[in-house]
Amino acid sequence: MRGGLREHEDAYGRLILDHLEHSGQVEIVERDDGFVAASRLGPEAYFAPFRQWPRHERTAIRLARGRVLDVGCGAGRVALHLQSRGHEVVGIDVSPLAVDVARRRGAADVRVLSVTRVGPKLGRFDTFVMYGSNFGLVAGHQRARWLLRRFRSIANDRARILAGSTNPYATENPDHLAYHERNRQRGRRGGQLRIRIRHGSYATPWFDYLLASPDEMAELAAGTGWELTRVIDDGEPFYVGVLERVV
Amino acid sequence: MRGGLREHEDAYGRLILDHLEHSGQVEIVERDDGFVAASRLGPEAYFAPFRQWPRHERTAIRLARGRVLDVGCGAGRVALHLQSRGHEVVGIDVSPLAVDVARRRGAADVRVLSVTRVGPKLGRFDTFVMYGSNFGLVAGHQRARWLLRRFRSIANDRARILAGSTNPYATENPDHLAYHERNRQRGRRGGQLRIRIRHGSYATPWFDYLLASPDEMAELAAGTGWELTRVIDDGEPFYVGVLERVV
Repeated sequence: MRGGLREHEDAYGRLILDHLEHSGQVEIVERDDGFVAASRLGPEAYFAPFRQWPRHERTAIRLARGRVLDVGCGAGRVALHLQSRGHEVVGIDVSPLAVDVARRRGAADVRVLSVTRVGPKLGRFDTFVMYGSNFGLVAGHQRARWLLRRFRSIANDRARILAGSTNPYATENPDHLAYHERNRQRGRRGGQLRIRIRHGSYATPWFDYLLASPDEMAELAAGTGWELTRVIDDGEPFYVGVLERVV
Repeated sequence: MRGGLREHEDAYGRLILDHLEHSGQVEIVERDDGFVAASRLGPEAYFAPFRQWPRHERTAIRLARGRVLDVGCGAGRVALHLQSRGHEVVGIDVSPLAVDVARRRGAADVRVLSVTRVGPKLGRFDTFVMYGSNFGLVAGHQRARWLLRRFRSIANDRARILAGSTNPYATENPDHLAYHERNRQRGRRGGQLRIRIRHGSYATPWFDYLLASPDEMAELAAGTGWELTRVIDDGEPFYVGVLERVV
């Protein structure tokens, strides 16, 4: 998604804002093959304090150092945690309502910005955090390589990306397996979801969200100035890939 | 909805079946103006034992007597309760998967049948139960009057209908108020929802589901052989209208 979302396109932010005011909210995701489901993790996951994060995210966040870019910051859980540890954090999200919520919750520097607009104006970073499967914001093969090079251009020496993803192939759900095959027949990655979020009268534009296996992540990074050096998981399909800047 | 649902149209039954096997299911309802939401009551409400029913439903069910038709029986909660109290109950539902579940849970006589197919083959009844807002299955003004006359034709003396509904006008939600107005401009009742249920790759056909205020229910019944004699509620928009057979 690009910046400049219209009010009724900000379904993600509206969900987050509603969650602040009423419990029991559900994130509803529609896929372009007609599959509709509530997210396994509800919006409360976007608000979770550190001690409630999934174990693999708690482990991996210890690798954050220096100045941090929090990509797709949502309600600000990562920014708030790293701020409290003394890091300077810039949070970006395409959702104006989510950014409002993150700011209200105390995130010091959050901005409405699409990941595709990341550039030298933001300064340089030591760590890029893409949590909650937000490596998916690279959207597809070509954009992934373009974005990783762009991150590299504003990365300090020894920078790393903590790239959260979900291995899409760790499933036996026939609907998902059929979707992977449908994608491949269209020249897309199996896990290249085309989805939108719906919430009441709000619906995001359709957008691509790439779920990548660790092998795919390694392959996407190769030649962009980053290298996958470690995969941190907890036996689930969720994992954090640690991408280190190649010297 | 008529009988003869195809497998992937039985989203309601699939939801109920999935709930048996995995907790955390959500009922996702899409309205024809694009509004999408999770039902306030999740699928667990379809399985709730008597002690967990809403108070107004517990109160009203004491008015059930004799042989009972459970209209839209779902997972069978009403049939199971009334059976245990010694009633002979016939449950009907358009959803084959829901009827399977109700049968597995012990409902003695449940059948895949649309409410529009109710007729003398089912025998005669002393009580018609339409719980969980299932008065909505009357769908609209004309069909309501036709159906109420049809119920009357198989109703014993002193029969009653326990007609669960939700007063659609007890809301300040601007999306709902705009929808009521949109309906009126199209010659429909304000609360005449056009919706479908979506669940994974399953989606029901679009169907009309009428939410009526008590005044509207009284007006729909007038002249059909039924009279609204009592409204049982609990301060919420949910209520049970007691329709007594006119002598």
